[in-house]
Amino acid sequence: MASSVTPPRGMRDYLPADKAKREHALGLIRGVYTRYGFDEIETPVVEDYTRLHAGLGGDNEKLTFNVLRRGLTAEQLSAAAASGDTAELADLGLRFDLTVPLARFYTTHRGELPPVFRSIQIAPVWRAERPQKGRYRQFVQCDIDIFGETGPLAEIELLSATAAALRELGITGFTFRVNDRRILTGMLAAFGFADEEHASVLITIDKLDKVGVSGVIAELREREATAPAVDALEQFLTREGGADALPFGEEQIRASLPAGVDESVIADLAAIGLAVEKADAAAGAERTAVPLVQFDPFLVRGMGYYTGPIFEIHHPELGYSLGGGGRYDGVVGRFLGQDVPASGASLGFDRIVDLLELDAASAGEQIVLVYDRDVDPATLVSLKSQLLASGARVRLEKRVKNLKGLLDRVTDAGFTAFAFVRAGDSVASELELKPLGG
Amino acid sequence: MASSVTPPRGMRDYLPADKAKREHALGLIRGVYTRYGFDEIETPVVEDYTRLHAGLGGDNEKLTFNVLRRGLTAEQLSAAAASGDTAELADLGLRFDLTVPLARFYTTHRGELPPVFRSIQIAPVWRAERPQKGRYRQFVQCDIDIFGETGPLAEIELLSATAAALRELGITGFTFRVNDRRILTGMLAAFGFADEEHASVLITIDKLDKVGVSGVIAELREREATAPAVDALEQFLTREGGADALPFGEEQIRASLPAGVDESVIADLAAIGLAVEKADAAAGAERTAVPLVQFDPFLVRGMGYYTGPIFEIHHPELGYSLGGGGRYDGVVGRFLGQDVPASGASLGFDRIVDLLELDAASAGEQIVLVYDRDVDPATLVSLKSQLLASGARVRLEKRVKNLKGLLDRVTDAGFTAFAFVRAGDSVASELELKPLGG
Repeated sequence: MASSVTPPRGMRDYLPADKAKREHALGLIRGVYTRYGFDEIETPVVEDYTRLHAGLGGDNEKLTFNVLRRGLTAEQLSAAAASGDTAELADLGLRFDLTVPLARFYTTHRGELPPVFRSIQIAPVWRAERPQKGRYRQFVQCDIDIFGETGPLAEIELLSATAAALRELGITGFTFRVNDRRILTGMLAAFGFADEEHASVLITIDKLDKVGVSGVIAELREREATAPAVDALEQFLTREGGADALPFGEEQIRASLPAGVDESVIADLAAIGLAVEKADAAAGAERTAVPLVQFDPFLVRGMGYYTGPIFEIHHPELGYSLGGGGRYDGVVGRFLGQDVPASGASLGFDRIVDLLELDAASAGEQIVLVYDRDVDPATLVSLKSQLLASGARVRLEKRVKNLKGLLDRVTDAGFTAFAFVRAGDSVASELELKPLGG
Repeated sequence: MASSVTPPRGMRDYLPADKAKREHALGLIRGVYTRYGFDEIETPVVEDYTRLHAGLGGDNEKLTFNVLRRGLTAEQLSAAAASGDTAELADLGLRFDLTVPLARFYTTHRGELPPVFRSIQIAPVWRAERPQKGRYRQFVQCDIDIFGETGPLAEIELLSATAAALRELGITGFTFRVNDRRILTGMLAAFGFADEEHASVLITIDKLDKVGVSGVIAELREREATAPAVDALEQFLTREGGADALPFGEEQIRASLPAGVDESVIADLAAIGLAVEKADAAAGAERTAVPLVQFDPFLVRGMGYYTGPIFEIHHPELGYSLGGGGRYDGVVGRFLGQDVPASGASLGFDRIVDLLELDAASAGEQIVLVYDRDVDPATLVSLKSQLLASGARVRLEKRVKNLKGLLDRVTDAGFTAFAFVRAGDSVASELELKPLGG
């Protein structure tokens, strides 16, 4: 019976050691983002069904865990099911990201927020994806977003804060791969793709990392995208270094693109890269051989709502990104009826925490009281309280035959000392403390 | 349009000041429970539908937010709806408490946990109750539980840790009202109620605070409970002090009960009360006129799964309890197939946080850089990074005409100093910092 009792499919429990590591890492991230001038907020885990299915979530909308309406009679249920419309059966859903809830939050509370609002959200999201190694149906995102700032200052602050958070966790050698949606569409136009093809062509180009140049070109031909444009794209991708990320710099970016891409977009993007490098150095980060920012002309990012600079965080030792983000100036307008400039950066916390070797900071002495069976409970807890009053962490353990096993276990759990408690002991300062481990 | 954009019905957003206060309070509670030897764990927010509807949640099961099965065709949906069985439509639900998930967690991971397992869970739960003032559909519980300890040592540790957590938050003058399920059933038997009546009679007695003695007696007569037993109960409740909570002490408890209640249960309960008082004193708590522990012979607690000592936390200035808990030795057995002794204490965090006047601990200087429109973004973020490297918290604000309004706002947000940044400034140590507020 017990063997079948598990967490829901694709979701995880966290045992004490994992939970302590996660809370410690979250505290470090929260601390950096707060110092960088961002403010933490929280929204409910569910949002109204209609808001989660407004077209802002792309494919993630299909992965929503929807919440059944309450109080429907059997007849109403049948009618709702017969309609074939999930919206008749469900009125809420678990959020699939933190961006849609943030846009809703900003719309609800705009009057109470400063003109430039910098938010922190550290919270779980849910997606009903097919469970697989390293991919879970509940996972934590750490997002920072800036609302109300139109210029590249937003992206510079977001990227420098993100770099600082990763460094605080002890992660180095990562790279921000940066692009701009307007560069992508400018390139597609220069190659000769029609405007109405852009969205579907970008979905295919987004697979470049997985299927390579030949896969992308084959898929576009199969889909009957404008043939001369596909040829031009193929030629561009197969020239030397065509699909590679490049060190940052306005001249390098310009030289890597076909003619016709907006000059001011290139200049802004280059300015972001250089400013982030400069801020990172000013914050005291050590220089490494890997550039902190690289231009990746074929970085797409999946979500259709991006309108300007976009980025992903890569690490040479990892086959997946540690996070990403970008500018999405039109999203708040979907709820507010008026566009608000917005840009955000998201860290995939679960992927990051797996990389960490953290020692949870231990505050003061951690003592185990190993008590004989005949010790009075009231005296035992009083002894514990006396030690607690001195600032120690204290745990009670009943003495067992396998004392070594017990002491090994509490040493592994981080305890630093132990004492035996026998009937008659009543003053903590008279207990003989012995060191554990070491 | 904007006016209708709100969080889901009965749920709340937390703006920066609220969120900071909540995180600060949660950190204090987490710190105390950890020092008291408990270990934090986490489970997914959803559990399998069948586990949430196994009869362990009492009325809360009906308040579950159920999650619609995914991937059903319109035909399958119709068939499921026609069956009238929610289990056909839903396979998961949002947890309505932290006890059912903990019992599931313990069953899943028992082999990896110590013989006596002391857990901390600090997490939201969801109940689809009718929204009303002070009652929300998503709220946070702070639970500690001890598995594997049969004796009153568990309750003594739970209550002394709970008292310490409340005191750490600055809350004093609270009282633990304590009873034991076996005292309740012993009393009912002594009055003459039949065993099979006990559950329903307890549900009525649980309303004593709301409807008074006459209301309870009237309801029992209406339900045709055994008449002489109802008369005996009425006589007992209407004698002097019959329904009142009492200062703790074995003799006082015994004197307050009808003959026939198990002596060993009374002795254990009295021992718990005295030990908790003693531990609280040893931990350095100040004595107050209000006793820390009181015996309340008619405390019921709603959940049917309690098997031994039960308690609630009351405060003379509040009309509701701040938390409660008790022993539930049979719950794990429902999943594991083998009973495991278990006892827990839960704090209603949302009720508690409303009582607090907390100043979030401010670490170091908090600086606002008020910049002119023509300052280069890269230089601005570099100045920010220089100040961050010195340990300060830093926020950028664009200079506006209403400078006083801006400075008032950032002062309210906790910032302690500001400096103007003008074109040409590039070295943070040369900026003139001016104090804010004060």
